Amino acid sequence: MSQITRAGTKIDTIDFRNALGAFVTGVTIVTTLDGAGTPVGLTANSFNSVSLEPPMVLWSLGLNSGSILAFRAAKYWAVHILASDQEALSGRFAKRGINKFEGLEIEFGPDGIPLLKGCTARFVCKASFEYEGGDHAIFVGEVVQFERQSGLPLAFHQGRYTRVLSAETPSAEGVPFGVRFLGHSLSRLHFELFNDIRAEYRKRGLRGRQYTVLTVLGIGDNCGADEIIRRAGLGGVRIDEAAIAELVKTGLLIKEDNRYRLSDKGRQFVIELIAVAQASQERLESRLAPGELSTLRHLISRAIQVSSTP
Amino acid sequence: MSQITRAGTKIDTIDFRNALGAFVTGVTIVTTLDGAGTPVGLTANSFNSVSLEPPMVLWSLGLNSGSILAFRAAKYWAVHILASDQEALSGRFAKRGINKFEGLEIEFGPDGIPLLKGCTARFVCKASFEYEGGDHAIFVGEVVQFERQSGLPLAFHQGRYTRVLSAETPSAEGVPFGVRFLGHSLSRLHFELFNDIRAEYRKRGLRGRQYTVLTVLGIGDNCGADEIIRRAGLGGVRIDEAAIAELVKTGLLIKEDNRYRLSDKGRQFVIELIAVAQASQERLESRLAPGELSTLRHLISRAIQVSSTP
Repeated sequence: MSQITRAGTKIDTIDFRNALGAFVTGVTIVTTLDGAGTPVGLTANSFNSVSLEPPMVLWSLGLNSGSILAFRAAKYWAVHILASDQEALSGRFAKRGINKFEGLEIEFGPDGIPLLKGCTARFVCKASFEYEGGDHAIFVGEVVQFERQSGLPLAFHQGRYTRVLSAETPSAEGVPFGVRFLGHSLSRLHFELFNDIRAEYRKRGLRGRQYTVLTVLGIGDNCGADEIIRRAGLGGVRIDEAAIAELVKTGLLIKEDNRYRLSDKGRQFVIELIAVAQASQERLESRLAPGELSTLRHLISRAIQVSSTP
Repeated sequence: MSQITRAGTKIDTIDFRNALGAFVTGVTIVTTLDGAGTPVGLTANSFNSVSLEPPMVLWSLGLNSGSILAFRAAKYWAVHILASDQEALSGRFAKRGINKFEGLEIEFGPDGIPLLKGCTARFVCKASFEYEGGDHAIFVGEVVQFERQSGLPLAFHQGRYTRVLSAETPSAEGVPFGVRFLGHSLSRLHFELFNDIRAEYRKRGLRGRQYTVLTVLGIGDNCGADEIIRRAGLGGVRIDEAAIAELVKTGLLIKEDNRYRLSDKGRQFVIELIAVAQASQERLESRLAPGELSTLRHLISRAIQVSSTP
């Protein structure tokens, strides 16, 4: 389980990197402008605080990085601390050879350096020192401007993205039946999330189980009743063939050779339902702090995974 | 929600410290020996990796720290990355004026520096550089020996100890319908969590809505149908009076003066159902990492709260 490297033996770089991975960090994107006025940015987890008075932070960058000259010359750079829903942004700024800023909404800081939005904190720094640190340069900057938003952070541990536990104590409010059974909270949230979708299918005189049939066929149709029932069951919904047959009467489904497929009208309706689902989810996301939905999603997947293991 | 400090205005130290807290870090204890041969150690979260070849790490220490002279003079120092069960040890090394090493099992590194046990990783370093960093000194050391043990790390975020979620990436499997709509994951988890409860009420020939009626009356009974329907609706379940009336036939419910209450048999059954719910929840909790269930519960409550606000 443990790896010991005694003084005198050569330190294995991969083992060393793995051992460093035991230290949890947040994830940041550092940005500046290069000499040609082109925005430069990269993902770094080597950030840390240094000083309170004057306010200073540091981060380090590999000497072989393509951005090293830009940061060496920069008078200003900015550090963005990422929220737990910004894993994709982190991945984008960790790549090489792409236009990382394309399509992003950018603000501009001192000297025109690019600033990103939606992070949990942002520090605009005036370059103070560059120090030697082996194969990396250590950049220390004085914070001249900063911004803080509430939200859960993205974290990095053992070479992977992860999330941290919320430090807040959950309130009992909104938990139905006064019971501390998670299942009842799930029922309630489920009800809330499906409000608009429910209104949509009820308008057409459909029931919840028929919504499930449509959803299942939206992923892949032209299958028999047994297959539809099986796939609905994976989502935790019990349906019977009668529910499917009724959908044929509405003209949303076509039955041929004992196989079911969506009609054009059915397919159109499924697309509408997906749009309504996305809108419901986006509304929820917009009302939560950054990163909360992504952490919730992560934990629900984890809970499903461990629950469905025998 | 956001705090903006523009260049030119004085940066508030407390605000700045809070904003820095947005960056998640691990927790370390750094140790050395002072000139008198006394072990010195302190808790720091300003650690980070610097270089792979040569292997180097850094951390920073306030210039007003009582240990600054010891570290300035030290040829060697060691960084210990703390495990999630070492919060008390972290607290001990963050204090002043106590013998921090008392009663601890110590090993000795080069020059006799004290090394702690039970950490997730330990780096013994030869002092390389000391750099200026405002009100802190930045110590860079070359790692001459390191040790790594498996284990979850202690983390620090927003001025509090926290834990990281399991880094295991939840697989897409188990998320039904292949759709990224949170509602579908909720359906699936709901289905899993209610497995045993469902088996229990089905054994008695009851349906899900009747389970809801029993649960509602378990909190407080002797109420009319309208009140039962209203309270079930708070939990996201639509029931009608027919579902209630059927429960009277089973002998679980008694109707008197248009008000419903649980019979002794009904009350006994509700107690059994609560026990089954608790067992299901405890099984889920035992399969998740510590703290994950409480965070999941917290985020679901948050989501309910923001969803049910108009």
